Amino acid sequence: MSTTSSTLNASAKLNKPARFSVPISASDLPKGFVVSSTYAGIKAAISPKPTSSSGPSNPNPKPDLALIVSTVPAVAAGTFTRNVFKAAPVVVSNQTILDGAKVQSVLVNSGCANAVTGTQGMADAQSCVELVQKHLAPHPGLGQSSGDRGTLLLSTGVIGVPLPMPTIKRCIPHLSNGMILRSDPESWREVARAFMTTDTFPKLRARTFTLGGQEVRMVGIDKGAGMIHPAMTGPTPQAGLHATMLGLIATDAAVDPKALQTALNRAVARSFNCISVDGDMSTNDTILLLANGQAPSATLIDESSPHFEAFVSELTSFCQDLSKLIVRDGEGAEKFVEITCTNAPSYEVAHGLLSRLVTSMLFKCAIHGEDANWGRILASVGGADPTLTKGVDPSKVSVSFVNPDKEEQVVVLRDGNPVKVDEEVVGALLKKEDVKVVIDLGVGGEECTYWTCDLSREYIEINADYRS
Amino acid sequence: MSTTSSTLNASAKLNKPARFSVPISASDLPKGFVVSSTYAGIKAAISPKPTSSSGPSNPNPKPDLALIVSTVPAVAAGTFTRNVFKAAPVVVSNQTILDGAKVQSVLVNSGCANAVTGTQGMADAQSCVELVQKHLAPHPGLGQSSGDRGTLLLSTGVIGVPLPMPTIKRCIPHLSNGMILRSDPESWREVARAFMTTDTFPKLRARTFTLGGQEVRMVGIDKGAGMIHPAMTGPTPQAGLHATMLGLIATDAAVDPKALQTALNRAVARSFNCISVDGDMSTNDTILLLANGQAPSATLIDESSPHFEAFVSELTSFCQDLSKLIVRDGEGAEKFVEITCTNAPSYEVAHGLLSRLVTSMLFKCAIHGEDANWGRILASVGGADPTLTKGVDPSKVSVSFVNPDKEEQVVVLRDGNPVKVDEEVVGALLKKEDVKVVIDLGVGGEECTYWTCDLSREYIEINADYRS
Repeated sequence: MSTTSSTLNASAKLNKPARFSVPISASDLPKGFVVSSTYAGIKAAISPKPTSSSGPSNPNPKPDLALIVSTVPAVAAGTFTRNVFKAAPVVVSNQTILDGAKVQSVLVNSGCANAVTGTQGMADAQSCVELVQKHLAPHPGLGQSSGDRGTLLLSTGVIGVPLPMPTIKRCIPHLSNGMILRSDPESWREVARAFMTTDTFPKLRARTFTLGGQEVRMVGIDKGAGMIHPAMTGPTPQAGLHATMLGLIATDAAVDPKALQTALNRAVARSFNCISVDGDMSTNDTILLLANGQAPSATLIDESSPHFEAFVSELTSFCQDLSKLIVRDGEGAEKFVEITCTNAPSYEVAHGLLSRLVTSMLFKCAIHGEDANWGRILASVGGADPTLTKGVDPSKVSVSFVNPDKEEQVVVLRDGNPVKVDEEVVGALLKKEDVKVVIDLGVGGEECTYWTCDLSREYIEINADYRS
Repeated sequence: MSTTSSTLNASAKLNKPARFSVPISASDLPKGFVVSSTYAGIKAAISPKPTSSSGPSNPNPKPDLALIVSTVPAVAAGTFTRNVFKAAPVVVSNQTILDGAKVQSVLVNSGCANAVTGTQGMADAQSCVELVQKHLAPHPGLGQSSGDRGTLLLSTGVIGVPLPMPTIKRCIPHLSNGMILRSDPESWREVARAFMTTDTFPKLRARTFTLGGQEVRMVGIDKGAGMIHPAMTGPTPQAGLHATMLGLIATDAAVDPKALQTALNRAVARSFNCISVDGDMSTNDTILLLANGQAPSATLIDESSPHFEAFVSELTSFCQDLSKLIVRDGEGAEKFVEITCTNAPSYEVAHGLLSRLVTSMLFKCAIHGEDANWGRILASVGGADPTLTKGVDPSKVSVSFVNPDKEEQVVVLRDGNPVKVDEEVVGALLKKEDVKVVIDLGVGGEECTYWTCDLSREYIEINADYRS
């Protein structure tokens, strides 16, 4: 995250699109990936009533269907929602990765989640895969063996409504056209816009880093806004039927399939699985990672490789950048809150307690009201599952508000006893756009950091009538 | 609940105080209980800045300190929050009941929860008990043996701030005065007002019923509004430190202590533990039940008594009436939502899934917006703990909206497949003040019903700056 943002007061919070839609450099884009996007009109096609259906504050319709293609078969890894009502695209992508297929393409749509759509939804998802494969096949440079030509799916939008297949069918040949598929930053930006639903800015980042002296590149897109409280796992051998956190990362590093999945699991555990906007786990949460090995002189990384930990570290940092963007753009969000639970008996306890706290409407309202009502922090944490709270000793817990701009910390509770504080000093910390809280359990050596936002009237406005 | 309310459209939602503050009859009040209340100015005494501190829409300060006294030692039962940061009054009351003491009095205050107040909070709670016992002692008719003179505490309000003990100390002699302690409906109503924080009406109900031909009476008070998602257990041998669902029920039935606790546990499981306003479990949740056996010719009820099941049934129904009032008066609530999970593999699964659903901001916003966005119901339920969802088969789940006024039901999902419905018919159901939802898991024979409300802009307004 940009450190300049934390120096802004909430009163200067406007224009997030300008502050967070930073341009990416062509030199940071990984080799061997091409993309296309279009406005298909998916939301309009499924809406019960006519709607303008374009992106917020944009008179022209934004893209809502996109294709990401690796020019050679890529190794793929994925993490998927553990929601029992998994969307059809989640079921299909999960199975493709579990089967060990190499991946050639990822089809992304916004406007319709294809979730809780029953047998029709599964058939539609399969049709999407077949359509992409049929139309991509003739192009030179793309793999021909079916085991090398996997297509993954990402869908986000309204739940419980089938995909408008005629609309999608009409657009796929266009998206798959070799003349349309491009690799420039502007085309990637349009793909990032195709991911958006109630997002107010496209979330696109790219970076170059070295592994053992070799340069590799990574580009990432995600989207969020609402129904954000992911708890994803790697691919699992379970089917299901079942909008809204999606991410795609592409790299030209060469990584062994098992190592790629392990790296993604570790990175997601400390990034996407540590954010919350509104506490609802989506039916569609998915992060996909493609590695096509097209970096010049890339060397294959496996788990025993000396560069594996460096790769995990870069990927984790990149995933944190991307996941924080989702919180920044949380529906109605005016505040960005970082909460760290320190000195916990285990990472799982720290993560579990914070995962509870960030769903607290009372805590999020207090942040919105710039009210240092820290009692709500403890009330919420204390109400977590007894398997998490059994190791918490109230007489050892301390709570602090931290100035994100400098080494300044105000302790409001020390070892279970309230500390008399200067309300004006605490109040000034709460007035910043970025708020930092530390909960010290005082009973162990593990820690976890979570990112969330405030709860505002605008959130209610956005969600009281999302479908129409 | 009054059935007339469900026939009202949300547009006629105003004036809940007039609709739900129904008068109670003197003949329904249990024998042998007297009460007093006063305006102590507790919230004003602890506020960081001056505040009017009176109840909503009431120019005169409402009472904030009350005493309920049984003229003979009463058998007591209680259920308490399982929050690990238990408020000092919870710790003290829990221990008193665990010790098997008979109870003479209950001291109630609003404005300050005495939660997360450390060692000072425990000392203050003990002082409250001692002050009441000291000042009540001289009165005739009240027990003298210390084992018969237990005092229980109920506190609600701001967390993390110590009780204003000088204020409380000044008021207790007045409240304990035998000339002040009364048994008329108006005095009970004032006690119910003393419980209120952001509640908009006092919650007081009374009823007479027969057990084996003998008339017994029951009076109950509760309060709620915010930080409402109780999960209480009977008294437990654990201490802790730590506003907001409180309830007190007094009956002149004669009940054995163990039977009284069992009856309360069973009643609370199907009432107070099945309501949610905002998903946050309070540090102070407490329901107390006093039985003083003063009904003429009351016969002692124990668990093997033929009247025990009838008593549990009456108590459960009474607790449901009281707990629904809390949802009616949920902070910012404009809708009253009843959700039943049917054909579940167990009661625990049904309860656990609904307990997750009622915390969903997205679901509650959809209800607020009168939007039949049932996909959010499944997304939320599906995101519950895997121990709950493992028995859910998405292909067997059905969802319906039910007209609370007549036998009319609109199925929107049947066996995992969306059903094409008339949006106008569903829309009309959502426009009512009372909304009913049925989730049929299709895999077992157990069921649970939960009550919750919508999430409105007013909730944010109330909670963005509660302390000031």
